Amino acid sequence: MFETATATLDWLGVIVFTVAGALVASRKEMDFVGFAVLGTVTGVGGGTLRDLLLGLPVFWTQRPAYLLACLVVSLAVFFVAHIPQSRYRYLVRLDALGLALFAVAGAEKALEAGASALVAVVMGVVTATFGGLLRDLLGGDSPKILSREIYASAAGVGAATFVFLTLLEAPRELALGVGFLFALLLRGASLRFEWTLPRYRPRPGVPYN
Amino acid sequence: MFETATATLDWLGVIVFTVAGALVASRKEMDFVGFAVLGTVTGVGGGTLRDLLLGLPVFWTQRPAYLLACLVVSLAVFFVAHIPQSRYRYLVRLDALGLALFAVAGAEKALEAGASALVAVVMGVVTATFGGLLRDLLGGDSPKILSREIYASAAGVGAATFVFLTLLEAPRELALGVGFLFALLLRGASLRFEWTLPRYRPRPGVPYN
Amino acid sequence: MFETATATLDWLGVIVFTVAGALVASRKEMDFVGFAVLGTVTGVGGGTLRDLLLGLPVFWTQRPAYLLACLVVSLAVFFVAHIPQSRYRYLVRLDALGLALFAVAGAEKALEAGASALVAVVMGVVTATFGGLLRDLLGGDSPKILSREIYASAAGVGAATFVFLTLLEAPRELALGVGFLFALLLRGASLRFEWTLPRYRPRPGVPYN
Repeated sequence: MFETATATLDWLGVIVFTVAGALVASRKEMDFVGFAVLGTVTGVGGGTLRDLLLGLPVFWTQRPAYLLACLVVSLAVFFVAHIPQSRYRYLVRLDALGLALFAVAGAEKALEAGASALVAVVMGVVTATFGGLLRDLLGGDSPKILSREIYASAAGVGAATFVFLTLLEAPRELALGVGFLFALLLRGASLRFEWTLPRYRPRPGVPYN
Repeated sequence: MFETATATLDWLGVIVFTVAGALVASRKEMDFVGFAVLGTVTGVGGGTLRDLLLGLPVFWTQRPAYLLACLVVSLAVFFVAHIPQSRYRYLVRLDALGLALFAVAGAEKALEAGASALVAVVMGVVTATFGGLLRDLLGGDSPKILSREIYASAAGVGAATFVFLTLLEAPRELALGVGFLFALLLRGASLRFEWTLPRYRPRPGVPYN
Repeated sequence: MFETATATLDWLGVIVFTVAGALVASRKEMDFVGFAVLGTVTGVGGGTLRDLLLGLPVFWTQRPAYLLACLVVSLAVFFVAHIPQSRYRYLVRLDALGLALFAVAGAEKALEAGASALVAVVMGVVTATFGGLLRDLLGGDSPKILSREIYASAAGVGAATFVFLTLLEAPRELALGVGFLFALLLRGASLRFEWTLPRYRPRPGVPYN
């Protein structure tokens, strides 16, 4: 059953992020190759970097079904993206969902590979944010990971919660579920209430240079 | 003879893309270190990502002659780039040639490594486009892979043709040659006749947001 | 004792580059997650790419203490960055120090892994410059590696000196020390005296296109 839980998270994350990447392509009015490139890169980018850093085989080179799904989903978005009335809201929500899914899926795969707790949390953040970072860089948007929104930190909290519960020997489905929910709720609340983290400010009286 | 065919494609691709990268450095009026960096990154970037994704040793770490060639070619361009009358045209043609060479060389190496057909086609596109993408990002140009030109799609058609012919058990030199020609002709025709792919457009009557 | 010398260089390089990355975050007035991301990416980015290219396990996945140090140092910079009167000068000097440290540390690790002399020099340059390149790209600055300053070339001279002395069978501490000093002095002198490399210029009389 556990295998199923992880594989399900991975699949959902890839599809959700592919839609989010393809929606950015629709905002930029790209052609369908642009949809396929942005969608696929966003969908598999985080997991690819995670696997490379952990020295594991890159997940989609073993199972081409992931690539096929990315291409089909991107193409579908090309034809139906005009239907929803407010695509930007969908994009932001899908991005939050993908972030929470990949935060726990990434940390989980790192623990499986024998990584320590801190490395697992960082891998959760890497998996959750790198696809979106590539999307932002390729699409010419400023990277959301460096914005003042609660973004990477939501992924970090979700991944840390999962790792912490796993260290306490909680059942994996529980740990995955709670970590996922923490990340999703934190990201959602920060969007809803426009929470931001305090930014660095030069202190008054000290000349800024 | 087959070994020779692949190695030849790889060598030609590296040299052609190195010249293309160094020509961009000349357009930006960089120093010769800039030529060497942009030339080398463009020349070996695609093959490097392909090897990392496939879990193979990165080709130029095993054979330093590739690096030496990149450095020598970049330096040569530094001294002779002022001679041609219309460098931009050379740049575009060399880029098309490198794209076609790497599309089949990348797909071929992926098949050799045991990848499935779809993964091999994607590896052809990755090998053909990633060096140029790095060149565009480092040089501050907008990524050609996301433009409306027939670019990544030409690489995809060439790689798919090669993979398809290989599955039909065509001789490898034939499959490589036909795939290469398809990619080159498609890219060349799209440049000549300014073909573009249809872009996504919000439908009339649907508010765009 | 040699183990100590290399490990010391690596640790110093990571910490120095983390401070440099976090100082850029302070100039952009980011929140502390931005400090942690930019600091960590700058600190471990070069060594990460080196390890991936050489097919070695990525150093910080094996020893989480590196990540912990990056996070603690970034947080410390968040709280004390307002104190120095001229942070930009610190930033430039720390960057030069990290460049020289990683140039020899990167070349050394490549030689250890059995790379040839040219590959080792290139790995020194990659290790020394890639963290800063990621910092520049993420922070929206133009990449210093492509500026006309003596930057990548200082790393190359330091790495080449170390490799050359090692081929002459000089003691490793000596080779590391001399290579480090060459890189540091060259970078420092180029900053002090505003040395630049000659840039490519279209020759007079030849139309520029």
